[in-house]
Amino acid sequence: MTLLIQGVLLDGHKKDIYINKGIIEEISERCTRNADRIINGKDKVALPSLINGHTHAAMTLLRGYADDMPLKEWLEGKIWPLENKMTADDIYWGSKFACLEMIKNGITVFNDMYWFWESTAKAVYDMGIRGFLSAVFIDMFDIKKSMEQIEYNIEIFELSDKYRPNVTFTLGPHAIYTVSKESLQWVRDFSEKHNILVHMHLSETDEETRFSQDRYGLSPTEFLDDIGVLSNRFIGCHGCWLDDRDCGILKRNSAKLVHMPVSNLKLSVGRLFPYRHIKNVHNVPFCFGTDGCASNNHLDLIETMKFASLLAKFSTNDPTMLSAKETFDIATKAAANIFFLPEWEIKIGNSPDIILVDTKKLELKPGFDIFSDIVYASNGYIVDTVICMGKVLMEDRYVPGEEDIIEEFSKTAHRLATK
Amino acid sequence: MTLLIQGVLLDGHKKDIYINKGIIEEISERCTRNADRIINGKDKVALPSLINGHTHAAMTLLRGYADDMPLKEWLEGKIWPLENKMTADDIYWGSKFACLEMIKNGITVFNDMYWFWESTAKAVYDMGIRGFLSAVFIDMFDIKKSMEQIEYNIEIFELSDKYRPNVTFTLGPHAIYTVSKESLQWVRDFSEKHNILVHMHLSETDEETRFSQDRYGLSPTEFLDDIGVLSNRFIGCHGCWLDDRDCGILKRNSAKLVHMPVSNLKLSVGRLFPYRHIKNVHNVPFCFGTDGCASNNHLDLIETMKFASLLAKFSTNDPTMLSAKETFDIATKAAANIFFLPEWEIKIGNSPDIILVDTKKLELKPGFDIFSDIVYASNGYIVDTVICMGKVLMEDRYVPGEEDIIEEFSKTAHRLATK
Repeated sequence: MTLLIQGVLLDGHKKDIYINKGIIEEISERCTRNADRIINGKDKVALPSLINGHTHAAMTLLRGYADDMPLKEWLEGKIWPLENKMTADDIYWGSKFACLEMIKNGITVFNDMYWFWESTAKAVYDMGIRGFLSAVFIDMFDIKKSMEQIEYNIEIFELSDKYRPNVTFTLGPHAIYTVSKESLQWVRDFSEKHNILVHMHLSETDEETRFSQDRYGLSPTEFLDDIGVLSNRFIGCHGCWLDDRDCGILKRNSAKLVHMPVSNLKLSVGRLFPYRHIKNVHNVPFCFGTDGCASNNHLDLIETMKFASLLAKFSTNDPTMLSAKETFDIATKAAANIFFLPEWEIKIGNSPDIILVDTKKLELKPGFDIFSDIVYASNGYIVDTVICMGKVLMEDRYVPGEEDIIEEFSKTAHRLATK
Repeated sequence: MTLLIQGVLLDGHKKDIYINKGIIEEISERCTRNADRIINGKDKVALPSLINGHTHAAMTLLRGYADDMPLKEWLEGKIWPLENKMTADDIYWGSKFACLEMIKNGITVFNDMYWFWESTAKAVYDMGIRGFLSAVFIDMFDIKKSMEQIEYNIEIFELSDKYRPNVTFTLGPHAIYTVSKESLQWVRDFSEKHNILVHMHLSETDEETRFSQDRYGLSPTEFLDDIGVLSNRFIGCHGCWLDDRDCGILKRNSAKLVHMPVSNLKLSVGRLFPYRHIKNVHNVPFCFGTDGCASNNHLDLIETMKFASLLAKFSTNDPTMLSAKETFDIATKAAANIFFLPEWEIKIGNSPDIILVDTKKLELKPGFDIFSDIVYASNGYIVDTVICMGKVLMEDRYVPGEEDIIEEFSKTAHRLATK
């Protein structure tokens, strides 16, 4: 599969980009090679695609089902009962629709944690994007459950080959208040042995911090460090309640973080992502995530970037923090590093996924600075074309088959809500 | 001019809506009257249009020109020098483009404060939306400037009749640190005599509060109360640094506020809008504003609503605060009250402006709750049709003549930036 993007803006200059099996082989004024597919790049800017660092894809099924409620009542009265009724088929359609929504928003890679692992794997494979997928590993400190979870994770790990290259299996120990020390030690060893990423909620709420202090006499990060779970394969999500010491521990272990500003505000977690400690003091690598559609409720990482940048400025009382360009680089280049993806820049020899942004959109006018305009003035609708692993997933904002996905998804969600 | 919207969803039911000169004359299962124009409402929801409580429209010219800078350097080194070079023609195109961008985002009414008053008035008139327009009344405590400003405001007040019914003249004393007590007293009397709204920045920053304490020994609100400027015609913008006592004073005077969450974060004003005091304790009426494109940088009030709702939840540590429905009502019904507009609900006899939202959009699926989906999951792109004073300004997301406006605006902005 070869692809030629003609006359597209790249770093401010009109270029042709020739891609062979996902690898950029030529960037020139005029490429004369033949290609299986040609994309007209007129009035478009080529950029690396966006990476969504944390979500629960199939929660699209729950969008708008329950909001504006106290956390406990919301989870116990609304979200969990409906999740308990979800079938593998429901989750397939929820995840498939989430993939569609992410493609529409210029996302080609996402990091997921949800039930019925294989349903999401199938959806990712069918949609042609990239998913780092974990099951929800929860044992509630019950040894029997722990063993079941371990068995299940080994099973899906072995199964995951079937969904390559789109799907990468990851370990998803839910959080320190839902997973036993013994299970976490197994996660540590299995991750090390097979070089697997560990995807975990970390320091999202004060309750979590207090639980950890009560049970282990340590902060969540100190506890994970103590039992050796932290490494450069560890991805901690949220991190709002991390303190300076925690950030230092994460850095020392080369661990990474994912920042979910929209979810944190909506669920009122009580503290903002401590940007200054994480970035300025310790320089812990982090990227952005949307979180799931019950707590955001939109899989638009451009919107998330705006929230993240503005909250960093506000929380540090410094409008120079998290500039537009830095924000964009975190959502692309830095995120790719976190997931050990190839270099996420459009250069010869690299193989990043690519989006084309439509500069004719109003929000991108007058067009003094493309990064400022994307981060501060726009949203996912500026994305015109999406290319993942050398394949065109969307052109002119159209994804082949989208009507059927939308219809089947909507039916599934309404059926689920009335079960 | 008569208009018939056929088969549109209204409060969950399919209806025909018949509008005569902007007044809703019939809402029924099937309207058999003839109309000058018929709109197909299939798969669309009819809602009252959005009201943008505070902006500086022509600052679209400065979008992306300078961001991520310390406030003083940004204003003195970038924004003010370029504003000084702006001509009446520049501002006409900047405002016209802003009107276009607002229409695209479902806004039909905005409250503006900017230079070259008549340029914006012309733009509003030409675009067919509604503008509450003030000049930027600044005298820097100079009696000569004060007299010039008073003369100029009387002049444009008299001129404003020419732009009815689209344009309503308002008084725009910039802020307590830029306008003398004597000028404010004139504003008070002129506002009372002619029943004119007063549009003013209020308690945006700590510097403003300190200035007021130093000069008058009072908070900005106390000072304005002291000299009798506060009334039900007073609209204070920002309000981040209001304290409990200030909120009580505003309420006692029936004054109103406009909340600009995006701008407040981006400019790092140091405090969040004190939602609990304003709403829960004193119930001061307020609505939302985008602010100008240099400090937001997007005239998308749906995005602003999401920021406002989420920040209210976060800042009160209560996810039930500022629910989706309440947020939507503030941006429509409550805002209309603030500007003494007619009842902003789609009911027979009322004359609100109307938007049709496209329910086929991905973000509105599965569609459990239209208000949650609008506020938490969408942005201005869900707006398909915009009707203002009975006239269709946009249908199928197309505004007649938009290509020319975009082109002329872009040329103007780039010419200005290189002057």
